[in-house]
Amino acid sequence: MVSIREFQNMMHRIYFHNDSERGADRTYRWLKEEVDELGEAMQNADEKAVEDEFADVIAWLASLANVLKIDLEKATLSKYGNRCPKCGSSPCKCPFVIRKS
Amino acid sequence: MVSIREFQNMMHRIYFHNDSERGADRTYRWLKEEVDELGEAMQNADEKAVEDEFADVIAWLASLANVLKIDLEKATLSKYGNRCPKCGSSPCKCPFVIRKS
Repeated sequence: MVSIREFQNMMHRIYFHNDSERGADRTYRWLKEEVDELGEAMQNADEKAVEDEFADVIAWLASLANVLKIDLEKATLSKYGNRCPKCGSSPCKCPFVIRKS
Repeated sequence: MVSIREFQNMMHRIYFHNDSERGADRTYRWLKEEVDELGEAMQNADEKAVEDEFADVIAWLASLANVLKIDLEKATLSKYGNRCPKCGSSPCKCPFVIRKS
């Protein structure tokens, strides 16, 4: 088991020297590329690649949080603390929305 | 502290009835929109919005993992287990790359 905070700290130990040099905007663009690659792996129904891309997306999200000095676990639990932030319920009782827009 | 697995399970309790109904492709598109919104919040230098969008990105990543029945923590630690998966070192000793492509 690894907490979100421990994982973010692990990414800091491994990559912060590079992430801080690359900076927020370029690290963000890399995150976007990893999300695109996750979509491609899903289209190809390549289960191992899908798992690897999930790992890459959360890794780059943690790297970006490190560059921006955001506490990812705190931000996450502040919004999603055992209930839906919109309706306040678990399970969520919001009207079901298929698409965002 | 919350582990990646506990967070994914929390998202399952709150949202799986909706996420499974929406399906993988549309949940993926929602994840992409959240990543776009994170970029917009960064451009606007709105710190609270940036924190909220980090929360949304990891929440939708967990929702997508639930729909695809991927164990996000296992996938993550399989690839990033205290060292860079490419060079095997921590800190990473790979040649520094500013851009992916």
